[in-house]
Amino acid sequence: MPIEIPEVVIDRLPVYARALAIFERAGREVVSSQELGAQLGVTPAQIRKDLSYFGRFGKQGRGYNIRRLLEELRQILGLDRHWTMVLVGSGQLGRAILAYGGFAPQGFRIVAAFDSDPAIVGEQIGDLRVKDVADLHRELDGRSVDIGIVATPANHAQEVIDALVDCGVKAILNYAPIAAQVPEHVHVKQIDPVLSLQSMTFYLKDRLAEVK
Amino acid sequence: MPIEIPEVVIDRLPVYARALAIFERAGREVVSSQELGAQLGVTPAQIRKDLSYFGRFGKQGRGYNIRRLLEELRQILGLDRHWTMVLVGSGQLGRAILAYGGFAPQGFRIVAAFDSDPAIVGEQIGDLRVKDVADLHRELDGRSVDIGIVATPANHAQEVIDALVDCGVKAILNYAPIAAQVPEHVHVKQIDPVLSLQSMTFYLKDRLAEVK
Repeated sequence: MPIEIPEVVIDRLPVYARALAIFERAGREVVSSQELGAQLGVTPAQIRKDLSYFGRFGKQGRGYNIRRLLEELRQILGLDRHWTMVLVGSGQLGRAILAYGGFAPQGFRIVAAFDSDPAIVGEQIGDLRVKDVADLHRELDGRSVDIGIVATPANHAQEVIDALVDCGVKAILNYAPIAAQVPEHVHVKQIDPVLSLQSMTFYLKDRLAEVK
Repeated sequence: MPIEIPEVVIDRLPVYARALAIFERAGREVVSSQELGAQLGVTPAQIRKDLSYFGRFGKQGRGYNIRRLLEELRQILGLDRHWTMVLVGSGQLGRAILAYGGFAPQGFRIVAAFDSDPAIVGEQIGDLRVKDVADLHRELDGRSVDIGIVATPANHAQEVIDALVDCGVKAILNYAPIAAQVPEHVHVKQIDPVLSLQSMTFYLKDRLAEVK
């Protein structure tokens, strides 16, 4: 990539792709940045600016060709590929992740699940038999795994992340409430409902103050 | 608030607060923006700029007084308060949310759980008996509920969000894979692991292309 694209822009592209797919399924062929923006709570200017990083998609005053833009976004984001994931932490949260129906249709497949609890190791959950996290290196050796999902308690998360990175995993989806430390070439996204709640209470608190 | 503070800044404040709390527990009294930045993968300049929205916290060259900054952030974000939440959707995902141990210690309490499935309504999950979502209005009438958590399938999520907004809920934590539509005075945060994965595959795809 010749230009450094800000991470906040990359983060918005899957949201655009999802909205475009909905328009496409509704039989639409063209959509304006106004309409797309209204659907997503983003300004039309923001959408045009974000997409301008990747070339010229829309024609002035004619909106975006949905199928073409969607194809481009899928290629840009690698959405047209399949990705393999391993899960570490197969407790209650891990089980909800394994049962989550949203990954597979989008090309994300969990190929192995691990835990450290002898009461859980060996258990069959869906298609997978839970493996011992002590065998992580051996199990992943020679396998191409794209993404590691971490669903362990906070106090074990960093060591698990280190082990995954050691095994060559380049992307981590972290459900544990810690700020994960990784080398520069590894990407991390944190799923943390408490952080999301805490950034909303800023606004709730404000509103209460106004009412007083 | 006299100045409009960008949402991306608000979103980073809980992350700062969490890191500061870890430094505080480790017995530290002062931390520099460099050290905090290194811990979080944010530039020191970004941290100083974000905090400057709320006044002067650090002394040039002396770093931040951790306890004072943490107190201020807690007040700014409303972290020093208790917040009540209701959950709609008590299937597999809803159960993982109810069992999640991270909410209560941070002051977030789920006070009621709802579902539409007759096989689930009436079931006891932990402290709560699942109520019929058809009774949402009646159940929430006169109760002060701050936040609604939506863990329903995608095709029911918008109607549930509409109902919660109708009941006066001002903040929605949405686990359903839809771009929720809400009035301007309502805040939404989406928990969507697929969007997080899709923004990481952008980088993975790039790396593969480089290797070729």
